[in-house]
Amino acid sequence: MKNIIEQDSLKVISEKLKRFNRERDWEQFHDAKNLALSISIEASELNECFLWKSADDADRTKIEEELADVFLCAIMLADKYDINVKDICLKKIERNAQKYPVEKAKGKATKYDEL
Amino acid sequence: MKNIIEQDSLKVISEKLKRFNRERDWEQFHDAKNLALSISIEASELNECFLWKSADDADRTKIEEELADVFLCAIMLADKYDINVKDICLKKIERNAQKYPVEKAKGKATKYDEL
Amino acid sequence: MKNIIEQDSLKVISEKLKRFNRERDWEQFHDAKNLALSISIEASELNECFLWKSADDADRTKIEEELADVFLCAIMLADKYDINVKDICLKKIERNAQKYPVEKAKGKATKYDEL
Amino acid sequence: MKNIIEQDSLKVISEKLKRFNRERDWEQFHDAKNLALSISIEASELNECFLWKSADDADRTKIEEELADVFLCAIMLADKYDINVKDICLKKIERNAQKYPVEKAKGKATKYDEL
Repeated sequence: MKNIIEQDSLKVISEKLKRFNRERDWEQFHDAKNLALSISIEASELNECFLWKSADDADRTKIEEELADVFLCAIMLADKYDINVKDICLKKIERNAQKYPVEKAKGKATKYDEL
Repeated sequence: MKNIIEQDSLKVISEKLKRFNRERDWEQFHDAKNLALSISIEASELNECFLWKSADDADRTKIEEELADVFLCAIMLADKYDINVKDICLKKIERNAQKYPVEKAKGKATKYDEL
Repeated sequence: MKNIIEQDSLKVISEKLKRFNRERDWEQFHDAKNLALSISIEASELNECFLWKSADDADRTKIEEELADVFLCAIMLADKYDINVKDICLKKIERNAQKYPVEKAKGKATKYDEL
Repeated sequence: MKNIIEQDSLKVISEKLKRFNRERDWEQFHDAKNLALSISIEASELNECFLWKSADDADRTKIEEELADVFLCAIMLADKYDINVKDICLKKIERNAQKYPVEKAKGKATKYDEL
């Protein structure tokens, strides 16, 4: 039966990442404030893929790499706080659904406080 | 058997998110360049949780919400490009393992090009 | 008398910068949205100087370079909109003075809506 | 003669800003790492003015305010390190002129290491 049950992808990533960091003795640097900062820095590198150009001219391979970095840093921060990523994401979608009710928000890119 | 096989969490989030956006007719705004930008903006809001204070004084609930936003925007961008998050993350960990070999990188927070 | 009247530093920078861009025919790329993005990217590179370390261990030369980039991009955006930097800055200090009255804000790093 | 000699705008802003912070006893929070972070956060708020829309639809008043915040935080960091903004900016333009020689860079938005 083992083959049928695939491991959750977030869990797989998280575990590989933890081993990677443990092997390098890097957990000591990974306080929450610096981890949050690293997400921002990686997000900026991702944005650099699109700077001065349209999305069509952006390099797909670089985008994949920088997006991976965003996920890796975000997962490290989640793990730091023992946060369940699925839970917070589904909860946030719920909250957004309340902030942006379909009948008000449909087809509009307006922020909720200007709807 | 149903109970044993849980759905992959990234997939669950992605599907909820897609439905959320479809219902609001928001896919039209979600070009790759703006999605990348939204990740950066959410990452900054996450960092604001830590501004002028130590991690201990940061508000856990806010952190969870802002971190969720980072994941949501990152998943939207991945979906935009049909990127498999697990694949790019594991690949990136591999690459990092080569850039930062254990014997050189152990215990050091130095960038690979300064190792 | 000429020697007494020094040129305004923001103006000097702005003019050098304009010539630099004109010579390279780069104004065509510098739409407002990308300029704003470039400020964010440079700000992130500045933050990378402080990542995983305390300010004491940050490299002063790198900080100067990255901070310069932030100013350069910010000045380009201001010029794009014909914005007078001094005016908007003094105006913003005034606004902040109203949002954060001395008697309420003194010694507190709290955001104005939580004061 | 006094009227002819105007004060340097960066100096004027910096002095107003210092008094603003001194009056509120806020210098204690303004370590270099957090100041750098604040620049990034303000830059992101500036970018939010452009999110999901074209520059033409961005709100000029908001842009001015957020751009002012970027300048204010950047000036605070410069002051923290006793950095002369004009000096570092002119120096950086020089460096960029070497990294991007006119004959190679003209009309191209390519990064120097790909030229």
